Amino acid sequence: MPSPTRRTRLVQFDVAPGRPADNTARMLEAIRQAQSDGVELLVFPEMAVPGYLLGDAWERESFLRECERCGREIQAAAGGTAVVFGSVGLDWKRRNEDGRVRKYNALFVAHEGRFLGPSGGPYPFVVKTLLPNYREFDDSRHFHDLRKLALELDRPLRDLLRPVELNGLALGCMLCEDAWDSDYGFSPLAALAAAGADVLINISSSPFTVNKDRKRRRVFARRVAALRRPLLYVNNVGLQNNGKTVFTFDGASCAYDARGGVLPAGAPFEETVLTLDLAPGPAAAFGRPLATRGDTVAEIAGALLYGTGRFMALCGAERVVVGVSGGIDSAVVAALYRRLLAPRDLLLVNMPGPYTSETTRGLARELTANLGCLGVELPIGDSVALTRRQVDGCEARSADGALRERLALTGFNMENVQARDRSARVLAAVASAFGGVFTCNANKSEATVGYTTFYGDLAGYLAGIADLWKTEVYALARHLNTAVYGRAVIPAGILDIVPSAELSAAQDVERGQGDPLVYPYHDALFRSWVEHWNRATPEDILAWYREGVLEEKIGYDGKVEAIFDGPAALIRDLERWWDLYQGTGVAKRIQAPPVLAVKRRAFGFDHRESQLGATYTRRYAELKASLLT
Amino acid sequence: MPSPTRRTRLVQFDVAPGRPADNTARMLEAIRQAQSDGVELLVFPEMAVPGYLLGDAWERESFLRECERCGREIQAAAGGTAVVFGSVGLDWKRRNEDGRVRKYNALFVAHEGRFLGPSGGPYPFVVKTLLPNYREFDDSRHFHDLRKLALELDRPLRDLLRPVELNGLALGCMLCEDAWDSDYGFSPLAALAAAGADVLINISSSPFTVNKDRKRRRVFARRVAALRRPLLYVNNVGLQNNGKTVFTFDGASCAYDARGGVLPAGAPFEETVLTLDLAPGPAAAFGRPLATRGDTVAEIAGALLYGTGRFMALCGAERVVVGVSGGIDSAVVAALYRRLLAPRDLLLVNMPGPYTSETTRGLARELTANLGCLGVELPIGDSVALTRRQVDGCEARSADGALRERLALTGFNMENVQARDRSARVLAAVASAFGGVFTCNANKSEATVGYTTFYGDLAGYLAGIADLWKTEVYALARHLNTAVYGRAVIPAGILDIVPSAELSAAQDVERGQGDPLVYPYHDALFRSWVEHWNRATPEDILAWYREGVLEEKIGYDGKVEAIFDGPAALIRDLERWWDLYQGTGVAKRIQAPPVLAVKRRAFGFDHRESQLGATYTRRYAELKASLLT
Repeated sequence: MPSPTRRTRLVQFDVAPGRPADNTARMLEAIRQAQSDGVELLVFPEMAVPGYLLGDAWERESFLRECERCGREIQAAAGGTAVVFGSVGLDWKRRNEDGRVRKYNALFVAHEGRFLGPSGGPYPFVVKTLLPNYREFDDSRHFHDLRKLALELDRPLRDLLRPVELNGLALGCMLCEDAWDSDYGFSPLAALAAAGADVLINISSSPFTVNKDRKRRRVFARRVAALRRPLLYVNNVGLQNNGKTVFTFDGASCAYDARGGVLPAGAPFEETVLTLDLAPGPAAAFGRPLATRGDTVAEIAGALLYGTGRFMALCGAERVVVGVSGGIDSAVVAALYRRLLAPRDLLLVNMPGPYTSETTRGLARELTANLGCLGVELPIGDSVALTRRQVDGCEARSADGALRERLALTGFNMENVQARDRSARVLAAVASAFGGVFTCNANKSEATVGYTTFYGDLAGYLAGIADLWKTEVYALARHLNTAVYGRAVIPAGILDIVPSAELSAAQDVERGQGDPLVYPYHDALFRSWVEHWNRATPEDILAWYREGVLEEKIGYDGKVEAIFDGPAALIRDLERWWDLYQGTGVAKRIQAPPVLAVKRRAFGFDHRESQLGATYTRRYAELKASLLT
Repeated sequence: MPSPTRRTRLVQFDVAPGRPADNTARMLEAIRQAQSDGVELLVFPEMAVPGYLLGDAWERESFLRECERCGREIQAAAGGTAVVFGSVGLDWKRRNEDGRVRKYNALFVAHEGRFLGPSGGPYPFVVKTLLPNYREFDDSRHFHDLRKLALELDRPLRDLLRPVELNGLALGCMLCEDAWDSDYGFSPLAALAAAGADVLINISSSPFTVNKDRKRRRVFARRVAALRRPLLYVNNVGLQNNGKTVFTFDGASCAYDARGGVLPAGAPFEETVLTLDLAPGPAAAFGRPLATRGDTVAEIAGALLYGTGRFMALCGAERVVVGVSGGIDSAVVAALYRRLLAPRDLLLVNMPGPYTSETTRGLARELTANLGCLGVELPIGDSVALTRRQVDGCEARSADGALRERLALTGFNMENVQARDRSARVLAAVASAFGGVFTCNANKSEATVGYTTFYGDLAGYLAGIADLWKTEVYALARHLNTAVYGRAVIPAGILDIVPSAELSAAQDVERGQGDPLVYPYHDALFRSWVEHWNRATPEDILAWYREGVLEEKIGYDGKVEAIFDGPAALIRDLERWWDLYQGTGVAKRIQAPPVLAVKRRAFGFDHRESQLGATYTRRYAELKASLLT
């Protein structure tokens, strides 16, 4: 086992998805720098060349050839500095199951102009063992994995899990695996240690979700302490997306010593390098004990600001229009953007309608003043009246006059007319005149049950806070005031007022009339449907309710008895929202803007869903019957 | 090997996704009927109990328990009639890779109150060997497969591919596999035949795409003739979706005899049963030679009518509003709906604007008269003028007056104002007043390059023809006139007029000014990007162009020289559309309505994409440089 230390550098950089030439140019620059700094081992993240979340762009052969060409350039540039990086591994002679060229999510080690593969393996690169297909990932759609390869080669899997030998140093290389305790019945980390790895290298392209990094560090620290090997974890920063769902990457790269101590590479979401003199094997002892606690709201605020700024850049948006109602959601969105934009590039538009109160109108003005940005008030009354005049009472008829029908707009129809008038008529036109985009301010509570209007408040270029429950939006508002701005940019009145759409006389904030949701309870209920491990359904809710453990199971601090006057009322409410969640809620999410993910189960690719209509199990019907008798 | 025939029945039925109790009730009824008819072997489709395309509903344990309960009822009902059906196979003791309960896409054989599994296998059900992750499928996200199981059990895969023994008859059972020649390097069909299967049973839940059934029959017929075994293929009918993409199931169930003859179960898209006296082994000879040709346009029309009708039912839509411009797309959509709806439930709305010609206005009236349904003309001029007055020239300012900016709407901005006014203001209000939904009439050519307006012509409850290129829309129009209606319901003028958005003075149909697309060429070009096996990119296009094979490679009947005055013009056009396809085109598809799929690579789940912006490979840049010098 080698004893001298090796000068090692981890490069946490901003990988541009789908732009191999750009990424490679940056990597080549880092390689030159490392060579001049005497670095022996240089480690880049998983999929550093192509980026990771590319959809079916993986099926473009021209793109694959571009990646291969980039790899050859890195190979040629790597002299005495061993360069570890992620890219797509290609086998042009074999086919994937989709019939296309065989692709692997692969780790390359370039050294002295050559690629070094695991000893005795079939390829000059390391193949990812466990492909993620859960959450936002689709790896099996594009990549072959090591298990299938083992079957094809008729070799035991462990034979293919060997270190890469580098001048007497055995590198136990893997790709973003083995961080979790229970997901797999198999540990590549342990297999590589058992096969003689001196140092473990885990390159990763793992999106941010709140609390994920702390959990990963805890698990890895425990593992490396048990295996007595140092581990280098390198993740990228930047923004990648699956279309509907937009993910930030916080990096959180770090080195673990052989006792479980941690040396972080730098701040989250920042490009950074960590250079250390690595003593392989059990001697490594450079880290600090783990930090065990973090600030969830602060982490979310950081991810939202980073992700929003990066998404604007992706879309080429330099100016932003926010429709501000005087309510909490739009106020939070406006306050977030004000951190990213000069006051002249942020325009807040208040669009009072027939049911808008003086209170919310004033709060919107106060918010605009606090943020110091541009504002304008554009009432919708004239246009809404025009639409009513034009449609309500107009007669449709067949050409021969045999069929005639007079159209009539209900009060509910007119609520949606107002919402659409604000977004699809005013905001869209203002945004184009302003040379910018307009935002969707929907939160996750509304998005869950579709408490939004198609082409109305559901519209926008990005649904930036749609992964936050209403209660989390309030927490974020307080955090923005106290920690980010250090003053109450979001007026106290906005934090105190009852949440209301103000689309009808029945939604009068002056009389305390607001949304039909008891947010702390309904947030907890909806969270159990969307984010709970086994996706709670009404059956689970009633079973828990009957056992008296509903509050505990869904994480609601209050008592359901204080909200519902008995099981019939609870069940009526439960079915009302479940029907919406599974009914028009799905239809609306299909046409919703991209969602910026900060937690598990953001809508979109991390929460795949079909339009099926609301269904209830027979066990639910039985529980309901027993509760109602 | 057994010689007596067995009375066998294939049940092609309409599987309701996510509704196990409903499906099971229908299956139990079919079992009772089969028992009274003396059927010995009764075969239902893959995933007949739960349905197939369910998104993450597979993660709901309450749903899985419901499926298991349904399975027990079928098990109890199956007496002397052996019942083959698909459902989810559960192993509550093991975990999938996502940490949840272990699930399989499974085939069950219920007989005499018991489930019969493959001889020597670990479960009382057949596990799907090859999980599809390509196209619209996500099987590895939810299900474990036989290969991983073989690795875990440390047994060769072929050991687990054994027939199910049923009273001396060896059933070689599989799930929707092995239909294609090249996708897998492995044939479960051949393995089961080699293991002694007397009859092969392939249950399936395979969506319709045009020409797929003919290809499948050709491959299966060849296989069974080589293996000398009859094969029973049972697929479901109905509609299932992945949210963004809506799939029809045509069934196309049939029995193959041991020489490759085919006995179809009935018409596509229809519930049907096929009862036959099956002679197992090489003696089976009941089929007819294959039909080798079909009518593509007729197949597409059939799928669109079926899918649209079923999607309306799914959404609870009984009345439909179509905005008709006098152009081809909306005319085709209106003509399709008229086949599904009484004239009183279909309302065509023409919305003339400042640039609408008398010609298209007249054609819209003619179409409405031909279809005999309701119509109304609702001009948008007043509203568009109101929006211009309100936004153009209005001043935004900061509260302290330090910042001031006067907004100005350009001509291009006003084009989008018109499009949004039509859909988000008029059509949405009319649809709600009419008690119905309104349609999105975008075709695949427009959807590819985002030649649509957000919240304008991109809006609607379903994009029913968005899987058809513009040239296919014309073919469908002619088919509707000649074969479906037998008269020119779509006026000749609509087929003849130049396609145009009529949103500016430069799009004057009276002067032959229309869309900036040469449809036959651009359809072929876009098809190569979207539907080509390896997803052509500008690099491929230029390489083909340089080799003089572009027309052949993309399937364009004309000559590019007739369109472009040299390589510079071709390249300028190529980059213009590629930038849109990869730029705002993606953003628009994210917010587009569900797409009804009829071909390979419908947008959505069969064409996953990320917002990455348009990129070009370095090889493209080199080809471009060489062509321009």
